[in-house]
Amino acid sequence: MSSRLNVAVIGAGYWGPNLARNFRASADWNLAAICDLDLARAQRVADSVGGVPITPSLDDVLTDPAIDAVAIATPARTHHPIVLAALDAGKHVIVEKPLADTRERGVEMVDRARQNGLVLMADHTYCYTPAVLKIRELIEEGALGDILFVDSVRINLGLIQPDVDVFWDLAPHDLSIMDFILPGGLDVTSVSAHGSDPLNTGKACIGYLAMPLNAGGIAHVHVNWLSPTKIRQMVIGGTKRTLVWDDLNPQQRVSVYDRGVDLALQSKETADTRAANISYRLGDTWAPALPEREALANVAGEFAAAIREARPARTSGESGLRVLSVLEAATTSLGALGAPHPVTSYVKEVQEA
Amino acid sequence: MSSRLNVAVIGAGYWGPNLARNFRASADWNLAAICDLDLARAQRVADSVGGVPITPSLDDVLTDPAIDAVAIATPARTHHPIVLAALDAGKHVIVEKPLADTRERGVEMVDRARQNGLVLMADHTYCYTPAVLKIRELIEEGALGDILFVDSVRINLGLIQPDVDVFWDLAPHDLSIMDFILPGGLDVTSVSAHGSDPLNTGKACIGYLAMPLNAGGIAHVHVNWLSPTKIRQMVIGGTKRTLVWDDLNPQQRVSVYDRGVDLALQSKETADTRAANISYRLGDTWAPALPEREALANVAGEFAAAIREARPARTSGESGLRVLSVLEAATTSLGALGAPHPVTSYVKEVQEA
Amino acid sequence: MSSRLNVAVIGAGYWGPNLARNFRASADWNLAAICDLDLARAQRVADSVGGVPITPSLDDVLTDPAIDAVAIATPARTHHPIVLAALDAGKHVIVEKPLADTRERGVEMVDRARQNGLVLMADHTYCYTPAVLKIRELIEEGALGDILFVDSVRINLGLIQPDVDVFWDLAPHDLSIMDFILPGGLDVTSVSAHGSDPLNTGKACIGYLAMPLNAGGIAHVHVNWLSPTKIRQMVIGGTKRTLVWDDLNPQQRVSVYDRGVDLALQSKETADTRAANISYRLGDTWAPALPEREALANVAGEFAAAIREARPARTSGESGLRVLSVLEAATTSLGALGAPHPVTSYVKEVQEA
Amino acid sequence: MSSRLNVAVIGAGYWGPNLARNFRASADWNLAAICDLDLARAQRVADSVGGVPITPSLDDVLTDPAIDAVAIATPARTHHPIVLAALDAGKHVIVEKPLADTRERGVEMVDRARQNGLVLMADHTYCYTPAVLKIRELIEEGALGDILFVDSVRINLGLIQPDVDVFWDLAPHDLSIMDFILPGGLDVTSVSAHGSDPLNTGKACIGYLAMPLNAGGIAHVHVNWLSPTKIRQMVIGGTKRTLVWDDLNPQQRVSVYDRGVDLALQSKETADTRAANISYRLGDTWAPALPEREALANVAGEFAAAIREARPARTSGESGLRVLSVLEAATTSLGALGAPHPVTSYVKEVQEA
Repeated sequence: MSSRLNVAVIGAGYWGPNLARNFRASADWNLAAICDLDLARAQRVADSVGGVPITPSLDDVLTDPAIDAVAIATPARTHHPIVLAALDAGKHVIVEKPLADTRERGVEMVDRARQNGLVLMADHTYCYTPAVLKIRELIEEGALGDILFVDSVRINLGLIQPDVDVFWDLAPHDLSIMDFILPGGLDVTSVSAHGSDPLNTGKACIGYLAMPLNAGGIAHVHVNWLSPTKIRQMVIGGTKRTLVWDDLNPQQRVSVYDRGVDLALQSKETADTRAANISYRLGDTWAPALPEREALANVAGEFAAAIREARPARTSGESGLRVLSVLEAATTSLGALGAPHPVTSYVKEVQEA
Repeated sequence: MSSRLNVAVIGAGYWGPNLARNFRASADWNLAAICDLDLARAQRVADSVGGVPITPSLDDVLTDPAIDAVAIATPARTHHPIVLAALDAGKHVIVEKPLADTRERGVEMVDRARQNGLVLMADHTYCYTPAVLKIRELIEEGALGDILFVDSVRINLGLIQPDVDVFWDLAPHDLSIMDFILPGGLDVTSVSAHGSDPLNTGKACIGYLAMPLNAGGIAHVHVNWLSPTKIRQMVIGGTKRTLVWDDLNPQQRVSVYDRGVDLALQSKETADTRAANISYRLGDTWAPALPEREALANVAGEFAAAIREARPARTSGESGLRVLSVLEAATTSLGALGAPHPVTSYVKEVQEA
Repeated sequence: MSSRLNVAVIGAGYWGPNLARNFRASADWNLAAICDLDLARAQRVADSVGGVPITPSLDDVLTDPAIDAVAIATPARTHHPIVLAALDAGKHVIVEKPLADTRERGVEMVDRARQNGLVLMADHTYCYTPAVLKIRELIEEGALGDILFVDSVRINLGLIQPDVDVFWDLAPHDLSIMDFILPGGLDVTSVSAHGSDPLNTGKACIGYLAMPLNAGGIAHVHVNWLSPTKIRQMVIGGTKRTLVWDDLNPQQRVSVYDRGVDLALQSKETADTRAANISYRLGDTWAPALPEREALANVAGEFAAAIREARPARTSGESGLRVLSVLEAATTSLGALGAPHPVTSYVKEVQEA
Repeated sequence: MSSRLNVAVIGAGYWGPNLARNFRASADWNLAAICDLDLARAQRVADSVGGVPITPSLDDVLTDPAIDAVAIATPARTHHPIVLAALDAGKHVIVEKPLADTRERGVEMVDRARQNGLVLMADHTYCYTPAVLKIRELIEEGALGDILFVDSVRINLGLIQPDVDVFWDLAPHDLSIMDFILPGGLDVTSVSAHGSDPLNTGKACIGYLAMPLNAGGIAHVHVNWLSPTKIRQMVIGGTKRTLVWDDLNPQQRVSVYDRGVDLALQSKETADTRAANISYRLGDTWAPALPEREALANVAGEFAAAIREARPARTSGESGLRVLSVLEAATTSLGALGAPHPVTSYVKEVQEA
C-alpha cells in the first residue's frame, strides 16, 4: 500500500505541535488539517510545519471524506464526546492519555471502536522510546524468564497541577509502560494507593501504588512532585535475569543483569528445606545498544500500520482502559486510606456481558 | 568521672566480636568478660581482643558485683529472658535489634528498666554512623524545616533468611533511623505492608511499608532481596530544604538541596487559588563533610554517657519498641493484604495504664 | 540607550541559524540581514526566524550605513579577508572560532580592530554557559584562591574531521574556557603536544596538551575522538578550594570542594621541614544553583554591551589570538614529538613593536 | 607436588603484615619466619597470624636450608643488597615495588636471578586483582583487537610523600598494570613527563606521562595528589572494542564497549579518501562478572607456581625493570621540561651485551 493516509490533528495546545511535526515527517501520513477553536493557535502550528489547512470546526474535519484518521490532543474531559463523534464518522482515532476522565466513558469509547471496526489507539508515547521497545522485546523473547516484580520510581521537583493529583499526572507513564512490556499487559488483582499532601495543596503530591499481579509477583510505582533529585528508574525482576532501566543515564539506559536467586525446587520439600536449596547467580551485565529515534515517529508508524493491517495498535484503547481502571481504583483506595481496591478487567466485563 | 565502667558481652556469634572489639578500644569501658555457652567460640573472641576472661555461665556474669553493664548479642527469641534477668540483677543493658521477638515482651522489658532505674539501650548501630548523626543534627537545628516525607530504599541481592522475611530482616534499619532523626521519633498512625514472595520461598522477599506520620506527611520503606543492583538511599523532604542520603556514594553521602516548593498561603483561599500561589526554589546544593569514625565506637560512648548521666540512651528501649510496634503491625497488615493497621504508641499505653 | 543595534549574519551554514535565532530574540539587536552566496540557504535561515532580508553580496552589507555589526559564521580560512573588510567598513565584528587559520593573520585582525577602534569579539560560546560564567565569577571573587592546576578532559566517540586534527577540533573549547576563567587569561610559557593516530587516518585522533602557567602551576588538556564513553570534565585546583565541572551531570554540574592541602610555611624552612608542615582540609562540598539560559543569548548581550560601552568583549579578539597561539605552538610541538614549544604573547609583541 | 614451600617475610613494616597473612592462608606455602631488625614489630606481625618464629638476622634466614623463598618488604633503597644476598644464597625472591631505586641496580638484580636460575618476582599486587586479570585475559584472547591507546587516571587528595614525587609514588601502579595487560608488555619508544609543584613542596605533586608505544598508539598516565575527587580509571582502546576500567565503581568495574571507528581501507587511497571510508560502530556494552578474591592471595599462588614450574612469574623481575626504566626516563624528561626521553629496553641490552 503506497498511498499516504490523511490525518487531522485536533487541538493545537501543548502536545498538538509535536503530533503535527511527526505526522508531517512520516512517510505513512499526509497531514491534512489542524483543527482548533483558537485559529491563531492553529495557524502557529500550521506555520511551524510549513503550512497546512486550518479550521475551527470539528464537523468540517469529521465530514471530510478524504480524512482517514484524527489525532486528538484536547483536554481529557473532552476526549469522550470528540472520540465518539470521530468513531461515528468512520475515522480511526489516536488520543492523548488519559483515554478519558472516567473508566465508564473509556469503556464506551472502546466498545464503539470495536463495534465500528476502527482503530482506537492510546498515545502512550513513552512505550515507543527505543528503551521501552527493547525492554518489551527482551521480555517477549524470554530473556528475563517469568516476571517476579516491577518497581518504578518517577520523582522530580514537578509542577503541582491545578486539576489532577500526582497519581493522575505521573503514574500513567509507569502504568502504560508496564502494560506495554508485561506479557499479559497490566493485569493486577487490586491496587493500594498511599498518598500524602503535606503542603496542603488540596491534592496528593507524593504517591505509592502497590499492585499484586495476577500472574504472581508485584508491581509498584512511586511518584513524587516534591523530590529535589530526579529519578526515573524501573527495575524488572525475572526468574532468569533482572533488568534496570535508568532513563536519566544516556550512556547506559538499559542494563540486563544475569544475577539472581535460584531455587532448586524438589517435590515434598517444605519451606525449611527450600531455604537450603537457594543459590545465587552473579553473572555478567549487558547493556544493549539502542537506536536513536524519536518516540512519536514510532507512534505515527504504529498508528498507520494498525490501520493498514486492520489490527489493534500495540497501545490499544484497551490498554488505555487498563491504565484508567488502575487509576480509578487507586483514587478509591486513596479515599479508603490505602485499603486495597479490586481492579475490574475489561475482558471479563465483555465476556460477562 | 574518670573510672571505667565494666561490661560483659553475652553471645560470641556474629555481632559479639564487633561489640567486644569496640568496648575494648573505648576509653569509657573495661571489657570484663565474654560469655557464651560455646566456650571455644568465646575463647576465639577473647583472643581476638588480646585476652579477656570467658565464661559459659550467665549467672556468673549477673552475680558479679563488679560488672556494671551487659551487651546482649544472642538470638532475638532469647532477648526477653536474658534482658529481664540482667535488669533484675541491676545491670544496665544494651541489646541487639530487634529488641524482642514480640511487642508484648518488648513492653515488659522497657517497663522493667523504668522500674529498676536502669539504662536499656537498643543497639541501632546505623544511627551512630557519621551520616545519620549529621542528618539528625541538621533536622534538629531546623535546616530542613518541617518534615514532609521520608522515603527509604534498601534493596540488594540479599541472603534469603531462614527465619524472618525481608521486612524483619532489613526494615529495622530504616525504621530505627527514622525514629532517630525525626523530631518526635517514629510516630505513625498506621502502617500498610505490601509484600511479595514470587519465588515461593515461604516468606516475603520484596516489601513496601507506607506509614502516615502523626505530624503530617508520610514515611515509606522499600526493602528487597531480589534486586541485582544495590541501592541504599533515603530522601527526607522538608518545608525548607530536602536531604538525600546515598550511602553507597562515599564521595558525597549526604546532600542538602535548597530546592523545593513554596506556598504563599493566605487566609480565605481555596484549593484553586492556592495552586496559583505555588513557587519553586532552585537553590544551591550542599554536602557536609563527615568525620570518619566507626559507628560502634559511638555506640559504646553513648551507652556509657547514658549510664553516667542517668538518662535514656539516644536509641532507648522505647525507640526499639517503636520499631518493634511498626514491624508487628506490618505483619498484621501483610496478612490483611495491605490494609492499614494502627500502630499503638507506648507512651499512650503508659499514660492510659 | 534604548535603540537596537543592527546586525547582519554572514554565512548561513551550520552555525549561522543559531546566531540568527539569538540575535532575533535579543532585546539589544535588530537582525537586519542574512548574507550567503547560496541564496536558498540564506532564505531558509531567514524563514526560520520569521523573515529577514537576504543578500548574496557581502559588499551590500558592508556598505549599508544602517548596519552596525556583522556576525561571521563562514569557514575558518575566509575569516581573515571578511573580518578585515568589515573592520575597514567600520563594522563591529563577532567571528566564529578559530579566529583565523594562522596566528599571523589573527594578529593582523586584532591590530586592525585596535586601530579602527572597533569591537572584535571571538564567539567562544562555551564561555557563556551558566556553568562557565559561574566558574569565572567564583575564581574572580577569590573563592578558589590562587590557581594551582587546571585539568580538562573532553573525550567522546567523535567524528573524524576531514581537515583538522583532534587538537584543532576539540581543544579550542578547553583553551578558550581556560582563557576566560583564569585571572590572567591563558598565559602559558610553552606547550607540549602529544598526539597519536593509531588508525592511520592521516591526523591525530588522540591528543594531550601540557602547558606550564606563567603564574605557576600547570594546565593540561586531553582530547580524544576514539573514546566510547563521553567525558567532559574540568578540575580546577586552587590554594583555598578546588572546583570540578562535570558538564554531563545536569543535576550537579559544578562542585566546589573545600578540601585540599595546606602548607604552614615558615621562614628558613627547607624542603624537608616543609613536608612536615603539610596538613589536609576535608571540608564541605557545595554546588551552586545555575540559571538556565542559552549561552548564545548571553553572547548576543555581551557583544551589544561591549559596543555600547566601547570596551573589549569578555572574549575579545586577543583571547581568540591566545587560543590560536597555543594551537599553532601545539602543532609545532607535535611535529617535534612533544618537545615543549614556546608560546608568544601578543601583549609582549605589541609592547616590543 | 604436594609439599608446601617455605617462605620468610623480610620487613615487618607497612606491607609485611599483608604478605605474612596471605602466605599463612595459602595452601602453597608454609610461613617459616618473620625477619625484622625491630623485634617488637616482628613479634606483632607473628602474633597477628597466630605465631611464627621471628628473627632480627637476615643471615639466619638466608643460611637456613629449609627456606625456599623470601618476600622482601623493606624500603626501596635496601632492595638491591638484600635481593642480591638472597639470590646468592639460592633463595627465590619476591620484592616490593619499585624493584630498586635505580635502573642500573635493577638490571644487576635481574641478571643475577637469570644467572642463578632463580625466580625473581615483582610484587605488582594490582595486577592480580580480579579486574586486571580479566582485562589481561580479554586482551590476550583478542576481544579488543589491536591496542590503539591506553589512558590511565589516578588522582586523589593524597599524602605528599617525604622522599618521592607523585610519579614514583603513584605511576608504578599504572605502569605495572600496562606492562601486565599489553601483549608485548610496556614497550615504549620514549617518555615525556610533565610535572608541577604549585605548592612548592620540593617535588612534583601533579604529573603526566606520555608514551608512544612501539607497536603503535600511545599510553598516557595522569597522577595527582591535589585532586579533591578520587578517580581511578583506565580506558583501553582497541580496533575491535574499547574497555573502561572504573575501579571505584564496585557495581560495574569493567565495561567492554562494542563501539568504535571502523576504517574501510583500500589500496591507493589518500588521506582524503580515507576520511570518507570511516564508519562508526555503536554496539552493545558488556560488563563481565568478576570473582571476589584478594589480590595478594593470587600473588602468593603465582609465586609458588613460577617456582614449581621453573618459569618467570607473570610479573617478573624484567617487568619490574620495565617500570623502573620508564620512571627513570620520566625523571630525566621532567628535568628537561618534558622533552621526550628514550627508554632503554632490557632485552635489547641483553642482546647487545
